[in-house]
Amino acid sequence: MSVLIKNGTVVTADKTYRADVYCDNGKIVAIGENLDTPATAEVIDASGQYVMPGGIDPHTHMQLPFMGTVASDDFYTGTAAGLAGGTTSIIDFVIPSPQQSLLEAFHQWRDWAAKAAADYTFHVAITWWDESVHEEMGTLVREHGVNSFKHFMAYKNAIMADDETLVKSFRRSVELGAMPTVHAENGELVFQLQQELLAKGMTGPEAHPLSRPPVVEAEAANRAIHIAQAMNVPIYIVHVSCKESLEAITRARNNGNRVYGEVLAGHLVIDDSVYRHPDFEFAAAHVMSPPFRAKEHQEALWQGLRGGNLQTTATDHCCFCADQKAAGKDDFTRIPNGTAGIEDRLAIMWDEGVNQGRLTMNEFVAVTSTNTAKLFNMYPRKGSVSVGADADLVVWDPAGTRTISAKTHHQNIDFNIFEGRTVTGIPSHTLSRGKVVWREGQLLAVEGAGQYIPRPAFGPVFDAIARENELNTPQPVVRQG
Amino acid sequence: MSVLIKNGTVVTADKTYRADVYCDNGKIVAIGENLDTPATAEVIDASGQYVMPGGIDPHTHMQLPFMGTVASDDFYTGTAAGLAGGTTSIIDFVIPSPQQSLLEAFHQWRDWAAKAAADYTFHVAITWWDESVHEEMGTLVREHGVNSFKHFMAYKNAIMADDETLVKSFRRSVELGAMPTVHAENGELVFQLQQELLAKGMTGPEAHPLSRPPVVEAEAANRAIHIAQAMNVPIYIVHVSCKESLEAITRARNNGNRVYGEVLAGHLVIDDSVYRHPDFEFAAAHVMSPPFRAKEHQEALWQGLRGGNLQTTATDHCCFCADQKAAGKDDFTRIPNGTAGIEDRLAIMWDEGVNQGRLTMNEFVAVTSTNTAKLFNMYPRKGSVSVGADADLVVWDPAGTRTISAKTHHQNIDFNIFEGRTVTGIPSHTLSRGKVVWREGQLLAVEGAGQYIPRPAFGPVFDAIARENELNTPQPVVRQG
Amino acid sequence: MSVLIKNGTVVTADKTYRADVYCDNGKIVAIGENLDTPATAEVIDASGQYVMPGGIDPHTHMQLPFMGTVASDDFYTGTAAGLAGGTTSIIDFVIPSPQQSLLEAFHQWRDWAAKAAADYTFHVAITWWDESVHEEMGTLVREHGVNSFKHFMAYKNAIMADDETLVKSFRRSVELGAMPTVHAENGELVFQLQQELLAKGMTGPEAHPLSRPPVVEAEAANRAIHIAQAMNVPIYIVHVSCKESLEAITRARNNGNRVYGEVLAGHLVIDDSVYRHPDFEFAAAHVMSPPFRAKEHQEALWQGLRGGNLQTTATDHCCFCADQKAAGKDDFTRIPNGTAGIEDRLAIMWDEGVNQGRLTMNEFVAVTSTNTAKLFNMYPRKGSVSVGADADLVVWDPAGTRTISAKTHHQNIDFNIFEGRTVTGIPSHTLSRGKVVWREGQLLAVEGAGQYIPRPAFGPVFDAIARENELNTPQPVVRQG
Amino acid sequence: MSVLIKNGTVVTADKTYRADVYCDNGKIVAIGENLDTPATAEVIDASGQYVMPGGIDPHTHMQLPFMGTVASDDFYTGTAAGLAGGTTSIIDFVIPSPQQSLLEAFHQWRDWAAKAAADYTFHVAITWWDESVHEEMGTLVREHGVNSFKHFMAYKNAIMADDETLVKSFRRSVELGAMPTVHAENGELVFQLQQELLAKGMTGPEAHPLSRPPVVEAEAANRAIHIAQAMNVPIYIVHVSCKESLEAITRARNNGNRVYGEVLAGHLVIDDSVYRHPDFEFAAAHVMSPPFRAKEHQEALWQGLRGGNLQTTATDHCCFCADQKAAGKDDFTRIPNGTAGIEDRLAIMWDEGVNQGRLTMNEFVAVTSTNTAKLFNMYPRKGSVSVGADADLVVWDPAGTRTISAKTHHQNIDFNIFEGRTVTGIPSHTLSRGKVVWREGQLLAVEGAGQYIPRPAFGPVFDAIARENELNTPQPVVRQG
Repeated sequence: MSVLIKNGTVVTADKTYRADVYCDNGKIVAIGENLDTPATAEVIDASGQYVMPGGIDPHTHMQLPFMGTVASDDFYTGTAAGLAGGTTSIIDFVIPSPQQSLLEAFHQWRDWAAKAAADYTFHVAITWWDESVHEEMGTLVREHGVNSFKHFMAYKNAIMADDETLVKSFRRSVELGAMPTVHAENGELVFQLQQELLAKGMTGPEAHPLSRPPVVEAEAANRAIHIAQAMNVPIYIVHVSCKESLEAITRARNNGNRVYGEVLAGHLVIDDSVYRHPDFEFAAAHVMSPPFRAKEHQEALWQGLRGGNLQTTATDHCCFCADQKAAGKDDFTRIPNGTAGIEDRLAIMWDEGVNQGRLTMNEFVAVTSTNTAKLFNMYPRKGSVSVGADADLVVWDPAGTRTISAKTHHQNIDFNIFEGRTVTGIPSHTLSRGKVVWREGQLLAVEGAGQYIPRPAFGPVFDAIARENELNTPQPVVRQG
Repeated sequence: MSVLIKNGTVVTADKTYRADVYCDNGKIVAIGENLDTPATAEVIDASGQYVMPGGIDPHTHMQLPFMGTVASDDFYTGTAAGLAGGTTSIIDFVIPSPQQSLLEAFHQWRDWAAKAAADYTFHVAITWWDESVHEEMGTLVREHGVNSFKHFMAYKNAIMADDETLVKSFRRSVELGAMPTVHAENGELVFQLQQELLAKGMTGPEAHPLSRPPVVEAEAANRAIHIAQAMNVPIYIVHVSCKESLEAITRARNNGNRVYGEVLAGHLVIDDSVYRHPDFEFAAAHVMSPPFRAKEHQEALWQGLRGGNLQTTATDHCCFCADQKAAGKDDFTRIPNGTAGIEDRLAIMWDEGVNQGRLTMNEFVAVTSTNTAKLFNMYPRKGSVSVGADADLVVWDPAGTRTISAKTHHQNIDFNIFEGRTVTGIPSHTLSRGKVVWREGQLLAVEGAGQYIPRPAFGPVFDAIARENELNTPQPVVRQG
Repeated sequence: MSVLIKNGTVVTADKTYRADVYCDNGKIVAIGENLDTPATAEVIDASGQYVMPGGIDPHTHMQLPFMGTVASDDFYTGTAAGLAGGTTSIIDFVIPSPQQSLLEAFHQWRDWAAKAAADYTFHVAITWWDESVHEEMGTLVREHGVNSFKHFMAYKNAIMADDETLVKSFRRSVELGAMPTVHAENGELVFQLQQELLAKGMTGPEAHPLSRPPVVEAEAANRAIHIAQAMNVPIYIVHVSCKESLEAITRARNNGNRVYGEVLAGHLVIDDSVYRHPDFEFAAAHVMSPPFRAKEHQEALWQGLRGGNLQTTATDHCCFCADQKAAGKDDFTRIPNGTAGIEDRLAIMWDEGVNQGRLTMNEFVAVTSTNTAKLFNMYPRKGSVSVGADADLVVWDPAGTRTISAKTHHQNIDFNIFEGRTVTGIPSHTLSRGKVVWREGQLLAVEGAGQYIPRPAFGPVFDAIARENELNTPQPVVRQG
Repeated sequence: MSVLIKNGTVVTADKTYRADVYCDNGKIVAIGENLDTPATAEVIDASGQYVMPGGIDPHTHMQLPFMGTVASDDFYTGTAAGLAGGTTSIIDFVIPSPQQSLLEAFHQWRDWAAKAAADYTFHVAITWWDESVHEEMGTLVREHGVNSFKHFMAYKNAIMADDETLVKSFRRSVELGAMPTVHAENGELVFQLQQELLAKGMTGPEAHPLSRPPVVEAEAANRAIHIAQAMNVPIYIVHVSCKESLEAITRARNNGNRVYGEVLAGHLVIDDSVYRHPDFEFAAAHVMSPPFRAKEHQEALWQGLRGGNLQTTATDHCCFCADQKAAGKDDFTRIPNGTAGIEDRLAIMWDEGVNQGRLTMNEFVAVTSTNTAKLFNMYPRKGSVSVGADADLVVWDPAGTRTISAKTHHQNIDFNIFEGRTVTGIPSHTLSRGKVVWREGQLLAVEGAGQYIPRPAFGPVFDAIARENELNTPQPVVRQG
């Protein structure tokens, strides 16, 4: 039941060094040079390889009911595919319907997730507002290990949160020590642009990016950040796809605001020419929101990662197959939004990041696991190689290669947006809570082996915020008469 | 009936030169050195003085019904005070109540304005939306000489325009060749902050700026600009009061967007310490929105004017006397918002601008009249010293001084936010349509002498925009099957 | 000898209107609708055409001795080609050799220019420093109508000005009321990069842009601007070619600094792929400094023009033929730097600017003539359509087309960087000081007809600067002991 | 000889947790809850206190010969004062005279430093250039554990490095895997401004900041960064004092460049009003370069630290007493530049940073030790609390208070720029290599106990840079004939 990884080079967010890593009972119990090999331990020879924290994907949607269908990867198939790619934890989303109880939805998602092969936890979406939502946010934080709430600024007439909801939920979040997060697109603009495009006869997938141009995302990112500033709340922007919203984040960070940004592997390497592909299936398979962008945005996003203005990488993994995408054959607004990626994120980040000199290996670890663990208060249990941490590890073979394809991937979807790319740098082994679940091409995932990760509230940044707020309490002027 | 201004130096937005200016029948009919003096002409000796276009104040609210009372300067007293200070035209605002017909409101304001002593024209506010509003915008532009529409992003539960209204009205404006303008403050944030402050017992005027911090304005300015970008519409932001919203404008302009900003004389020289004054009357007299800001914003606004990112200066002249302000004695949210200024704007801009080396004389003219005339398509009829233009002129004595005071001003209000400042540089004469209406301290304004200025649609910028839109028309992809 | 342009639409930097324009004795003497036709006047029917100020090219090098050869267009052929394209004035450069008297060089250039067919004036370069340079700058300004000085920050071991020269010359310029200008490239970096590239065997023209990357220009632009700020001097940056130096200008302008930028027609439309062309002659023909840039810079420069951060357009017209360029066959650092363009600038700016919706017609006039005239204090004599101005006019046919080619152009060079472009919008007539010098394809230029334009010092901005400096005079602290 | 710190809360740059820390033989050998107490161990009860890495001051000048005198704190007194304040390592500067051998100077400084009470290492300044300097840089890196080189862009006619030296030394540094650093002030501008001020009779300390305005620093920071970009070298800017140079760093980092900035505790809390103090001694005691700045810069610097654009804090500790400062009584340019601070840095950073809510405790550790250790490749040996690291620790009492004063401090100088401030948060114990050297107010420093810290070249960032450079190797175009 114990595993000894020998002869490897440990790479963490802050250092690189030769050491063996010994795991037992689901934990890392020793790190050091030339550790003795216990008799019962499985030994992995990591010569010439790197031992790193398993990836954490902070943005997935397994078996999500959405746009009249259900995402095709469930919690088992999706997390198993993640393990094949070196990702050992996910943060998925509980998305209550408007008027639905948050707790009811939370329990529904917990049930669905019971079959997960890797560890998981949840952001909870605030899609409506009344006093009961205020209450249940408290219950979720205090009793259920939730420390982040999600707000969709897009999807008018569905789950869109208006400014009043944002203001009240942000205020409530900071009270509870939880992190507000947003999907930043101005839903009103998207809706109007969609109507205008359809009216002009633009019904195909090529209209999708035109209905959600960068300015739509920039507006919402700015608005969310400004609302957060007005209430001195930290904020995390999911799937930043364009330089304009990156700039909004960057400006705020340059001013010392505690604003964070996530970028998807897909947005870093795929451009919007896909939507004009003559084959509907190909074009539709890329429909997600925000859409892929013109090439110039990709380098900007890499610069954002490298300069520290973007902290995390994710996938927004949300699979829909060709027959599902076909629902929007005559109306691009009905194409289910989503693409796969959990299996490929680490390889893409390594191949395009480290191999291209854009990221150091330590930065690779920071943006694929450690920063997420810190921001959502799972560190150092997750996202570290340290004694006492969960033994979620990936042994990375920098010389290994793989050609990505829907034909060979483990994701339950008939398309891969990275199809045909040959990456250099792949996981030789993945350990989840100390068990080898991926061994040189063989997937050993176990349905239901994943555990729920409760995350405590009040991460380190909240103390500083509380101190600031205390010092800034407004004082009335005393006046005569 | 004719006037010859002799021996002066003409100063316009683009040049400075010695010339006499001869006005007849309300128009400038000759400009040149050593013009002959017609027998019947009144002669003004402008030796040592500057002859400039009369000021245009693009933002006034005469006799506005607002917050349960009515602004104390009516169209006669207000415009007359403007003439005393060298301002010869105003753009006031027609503000329909929600659900009120735009045309009905327009005619109401036209009636009120009939008594004006100086020329006037109107922005029309879009405070609600349905198909009739869409129609009446067209009628106003095509039949009534309106070429600009105003949108309040503040004042929730009253005249606030939501994103849907902004999108639809901006789209309609550009179709009609009219300029959309916005009051940029996030009304939702203001409302929530007001409630929070009141709940904390912050009921005095010192809470006013806390309920509308710069970030509230920055958010709305950004949003309006982004919505305008999404539809390729020019946009004009009224009363920019803080560096954050100036920065939003500046970023857009740096990117080549056609975005314009107006700044109030008051915001350039008064800071937010006024709200903590121990005398309620003094503090309340300064309550306007956006509020006065911390000192650092003033220099930023001057830089904005000088660097060309702000183009116009105004006053938001909207007078309420002490007894009116008293309505908010126990609740700052009930203090009628507004201050005076039309009489003092030019003197403040000259004394703090030209005398301090912040602006050249030509820049002074540009920001007090010419740029406004161009942006709202009244140029060169207004805002120029040129043959054929309306003879709206000010003869400016750069050595003259005046100490500003409510005791001596002509505005119908018992307070002056510039009280006690001694300015160097004052109008010796003002001409309105060729008549001397201010002569060395003597006000000769005539009730009803002012005329309505119809403004044609499709200013020069609209051609370029139309060309761009034509070139960017989306084209569908032709697909098989 | 008089000319009446009838039925046209006058377009200036600030307005567009129907009017006839009557020229006599070299001046514009009347502008108005339906002017009478004097018996002796030549009549030009400008129906459907625009009447605009002739172009001013603020950056040319006629018959410049440079890099061991002499530019092939002399003052006659070069200015004549300009007239064919609608450009009626140039600002050329007097470039003294290090240690040469400024006055001696000035007179040399005046002699060379005597044959010019169009009006001309000179920036004088400061290529070295001692007390005599300080003195002669004064003489040039006070006695010879020079009001601008140029500084090369590139060309190490030749005409490069070091920081000490910049500081002293900028200080002297502002004292004299003259505008300092700079060629912004860090000469030391260029030199070192050239050596490194040659050492690596990179000897062809493709190494030219690598030896002068954008950062080299950005550094120098920043440095010049900062030095100017330190001494409160305005500054004008010639041939801004990349977004990085545009950003330096933009930042300074946003802060209210009086910083100006010029852009070349070539940099707006040609990209750096030309240097990798397999034909040496083609690649070498494009060698100029700063070099053409990657495509992304072009849109940034257009945005800079439109947003007002760049004010003027020029050509850096400096012709070298293939046999001259061949000097650098084996060493790119020996290819004479320069390209032609004076004949094509207006057509390129119209076709890519106005026709593409990037510029309004008024903006076109501003950036092709008026702004230059203002900045270098020739306005309104040059750069305007106004009574009393020099009758330097172009009648522009917006429907006319021309395919640009070295085979048909009037420039004395065997290459055209715009070869093969068909532009829509061409001059039908050009008037220079009231004479028709280009009539529907026929060039009527007269050698020696051009006159020197003396430019007075102390343009309008200097008063504001003087006022600021006076208010900021440092005051010592009085201390005991 | 061993020490057990019990019951404390360990605070590192990335986490906060309850643990005991056991040190033996100069190293940390165990970290855990409820560690057993070895019989021979000294036990420190850290209940209610924080256990953090000892401070690293990356910028000190002990016993520096400068401006005709020698800094009054030598390596013993200075490092001992550091220990009293919780700082356990310094990076001092070897500054060869122009033409002096780098190695000779290095050995000189090593000799001087032998008496240090705490660990030390050296940046080596490049003050001139020839082939021998190129060679000796190699020797220092390969044989003497130097991995950073310093360049003074100020101090014309003394140690100023010109652009040629910067280019060559930066190129050499990256080849060697060493970090170039700069003192960013344009020495030419400083020199000219000094001469102008003296000529105007401005001879007192109030002229000092006028001779080195922010723009002087911004220019040099920009230049150094651009030169570094041109050669793809990382760069570290020492003592960033103003928002303008912070903005230069920020821009570069936003673009993904590997640029780092250091800020001094003094610049974060002291403003330039000190120079106008009527007492010469007081004013002169604050003379250092860059000077203290207007208040607005302080908040910008805090924002820079918090947003991650500044990574390290230092002091530029360089003591001169009143009699030394008196050398500049009649000429501010002769006042020896420098102030003390090593003893107070941590307390100032805690009191103004953590107590004010500007920094979290983890950020405090990052900016006082960890980031410096990482950037200069001493991590995790220094700057961490981890098994195997040097036992350089501070036990921090967040409730302890101290009033800073020259009367009580341990620094060998008669002045303290923080005089009279009462800080909350002080070290109760400091350990240097496992020995208690400060115990509740008692200084136990031992002369000569400090050791030299060799620092290996090629920190992690260099691999990424090498990979980028390899991919960007220029390729010649193959041409015919």
